[in-house]
Amino acid sequence: MQKERHKILAESVKRLLRRGATKSLQNIIKKTHAADLSLVFRDLSSDNRIQMLNLMKDPEQKGVLFSELEETVFLEIMEHMAVEEVVDVFENMAADDAAELLGYLDEDTADIILEKMNKEDSQEVEHLMSYGEDTAGSIMVPDFIALKEDMGARDVIEALQNEFLDVEMPFYVYVIDTYGKLVGVSSLRQLVVVHPEKPLKEFMTRDIVSVKTYTDREEVAQLVARYDYLAVPVVDDDNCLVGIVTVDDVIDIISEEATGDILKMAGVGEDYIETQTVLRGTRIRLPWLFTSFLGGLAAFFIIGNFEASLQQYAYLAAFIPVIMGMGGNIGTQSSTIVVRGIATGKIDTGDLFSVVGKELAIGVILGIVYGLFIGIVAKVRFNHEPLSLQLAFSVGLAVISSMSVAALVGSLVPMLFEKANIDPAVATGPFVTTSVDIVSVYCYFMIATILLGI
Amino acid sequence: MQKERHKILAESVKRLLRRGATKSLQNIIKKTHAADLSLVFRDLSSDNRIQMLNLMKDPEQKGVLFSELEETVFLEIMEHMAVEEVVDVFENMAADDAAELLGYLDEDTADIILEKMNKEDSQEVEHLMSYGEDTAGSIMVPDFIALKEDMGARDVIEALQNEFLDVEMPFYVYVIDTYGKLVGVSSLRQLVVVHPEKPLKEFMTRDIVSVKTYTDREEVAQLVARYDYLAVPVVDDDNCLVGIVTVDDVIDIISEEATGDILKMAGVGEDYIETQTVLRGTRIRLPWLFTSFLGGLAAFFIIGNFEASLQQYAYLAAFIPVIMGMGGNIGTQSSTIVVRGIATGKIDTGDLFSVVGKELAIGVILGIVYGLFIGIVAKVRFNHEPLSLQLAFSVGLAVISSMSVAALVGSLVPMLFEKANIDPAVATGPFVTTSVDIVSVYCYFMIATILLGI
Repeated sequence: MQKERHKILAESVKRLLRRGATKSLQNIIKKTHAADLSLVFRDLSSDNRIQMLNLMKDPEQKGVLFSELEETVFLEIMEHMAVEEVVDVFENMAADDAAELLGYLDEDTADIILEKMNKEDSQEVEHLMSYGEDTAGSIMVPDFIALKEDMGARDVIEALQNEFLDVEMPFYVYVIDTYGKLVGVSSLRQLVVVHPEKPLKEFMTRDIVSVKTYTDREEVAQLVARYDYLAVPVVDDDNCLVGIVTVDDVIDIISEEATGDILKMAGVGEDYIETQTVLRGTRIRLPWLFTSFLGGLAAFFIIGNFEASLQQYAYLAAFIPVIMGMGGNIGTQSSTIVVRGIATGKIDTGDLFSVVGKELAIGVILGIVYGLFIGIVAKVRFNHEPLSLQLAFSVGLAVISSMSVAALVGSLVPMLFEKANIDPAVATGPFVTTSVDIVSVYCYFMIATILLGI
Repeated sequence: MQKERHKILAESVKRLLRRGATKSLQNIIKKTHAADLSLVFRDLSSDNRIQMLNLMKDPEQKGVLFSELEETVFLEIMEHMAVEEVVDVFENMAADDAAELLGYLDEDTADIILEKMNKEDSQEVEHLMSYGEDTAGSIMVPDFIALKEDMGARDVIEALQNEFLDVEMPFYVYVIDTYGKLVGVSSLRQLVVVHPEKPLKEFMTRDIVSVKTYTDREEVAQLVARYDYLAVPVVDDDNCLVGIVTVDDVIDIISEEATGDILKMAGVGEDYIETQTVLRGTRIRLPWLFTSFLGGLAAFFIIGNFEASLQQYAYLAAFIPVIMGMGGNIGTQSSTIVVRGIATGKIDTGDLFSVVGKELAIGVILGIVYGLFIGIVAKVRFNHEPLSLQLAFSVGLAVISSMSVAALVGSLVPMLFEKANIDPAVATGPFVTTSVDIVSVYCYFMIATILLGI
């Protein structure tokens, strides 16, 4: 439904651009949400994007549009805009979005823009840019309501109606003491039910959850998700309120972190974007495949050591794919379950033994099941050959060991990486697959050589 | 930081339970958010959970706790609770959470509970349960503010302060006409700045985004994420407002859908939970591995056909892992990028040719790079053998074809599945890996047989 709407919108924009129907385009721009325009922009040619941008008059709408664009499209557009125009847009943008976009630009350009922006706006943005990437500080907005604890309910309501009209999300009234330290929070609901003269400190909620400016943004997102908050206050080391992280940013974080984890596990690197050019895509993916290449080489040299066995029993080679495949797949299952469990907080590294033990048990059971299957296939297929029973046993045992080791490695590695503060998603994907491949092949040929008495 | 807190909390609860320190436990329960208690519950033994539950007096807190528990823990607890107690909790729970939990119970038990609940609550819950799984209807809450379009701003504010005090998230005032049809929306901010006598219809926003009761919940989540809404109104086919989906539920949806996609791609099924018993885990994962088993068997029979070649050149076998591994890994990269791109709306099935073309190009380039590497290794290693150049060419070409086919299949399959309305995540994982394995092995031996003139 939504997709249909966007397709129709993109088509009409393209048609109107071809016809140069400026008036109609301006009408569409005025009526369309910047988030929808950003989707249309993705489908437009570079020239058309500039044309559309020139038709947009509202700097605030341009600001929202910019914040929704992908990095590459944004950078391309920037090349065609006058500095004054850019400054105008940045001044009308949420400070956290402006900070993020400026981070995409090279330092010189960013400095020029910041210098030309009005002092107050640029200071806010520079302040946010000074916090580390992926911290609460870098995504907070300075747009919050903070009032002194002695203020009465009626005065608070009046202040809300007068001073704080342009606060974007006025759900929580944060309460601070004379030193600016965060001491409580109150809601609109509380404000209207208490006696109008009652001061905030007498009815506010004191048990308030806050984060530090350097708290990891993923932790902030988990807090908001767990307690169903609409915003979390951010405080500095002195517990002074400096900003809030709002739920709309948390949604983006959760989606981005999930995408990042998925891509990292597939060995692509978390920032891989679909709109990449072929060459950039190749450059990003080349090194990730190198682990797999090294693993393949290792397997090659291992098998090379058993060339004598292969010359005697050539059909041993035919089982390599199924042994590697079963191990690889159960290893992927185990590591995915554990990596995702850690990310969503359902698995704790404290449970190491129970989690790894369970995965190993599942690996052994499934290994026995499929080892039996494959052993039977081997026995039936090579019934006419000498030592077919030994062959069947070799193959079956190889599947059991390969699947057990894979489940063990697949669950143990992400747990250990998490304990050592290495991102389990980025390290697990290639590492697990490659090591499982090597171990599988080695076990298989060792077992076969012994059992077949080569 | 958060994890530390939870660990400490769980430890003290366990210690107090051992000592039977009822008073202290009740104090902790009173002061702790139900979302935190649910984490503690996960760590407790079955008996301890029941003990804790008996100490909890507030049915509303129990309701929130229940809605945070995992299905298995919830079902276990249910067995130890009296029906009256359960009914009390369900009456004090958000209707959408109650509907979800009742869905876990067998029909008879659910009916008994619904019958004993007070009429109004049970009707609400049954109503929600009547909507299809994963639709907007099944997750909406009937907790919204809807007022007639003729009402003046001041009267609206008064109504908010009196009638709608227990609406959980009072951000939007929805405006309906005399037939109950949704015609607009207004915000608290608008209400306080307009003239007090001005009727809603003169200042409300008419361009309102709503969803149908049967809209897929993933689409609802994407809407909320795109436009930074705090809630979306849900209407029936007559455009009458019947509920809202709030942002806190959207966060859960986004996280669950991402987890589901990750697990499906790893071939585990989207509902795999880490706390599964070994036997259940085995049962769920067994069939998923069957595809991989069949693929392995197919590769086995293919290689069997080339037994003559293997007997002549045993070292051909040593290259099987690297060829399969490189193909498998680039195939996983491609399918992951496409599946996640589709899920986040960054890739549209309309872009089929450009997306698949780009992936294929990357596959060919990377294939040439790694094919060259491996060809050189083969030439150097087997320099003393006759036909070592032909062998090097065979292996190199096999890597190129394997990686190109893998990138093609890996990107094409999810696009086609999405077009055919089959979930690309569930279908892609095992399908892509298995077909790539088979094609890789076949191509390799075909090329080798021809070039080596066997």
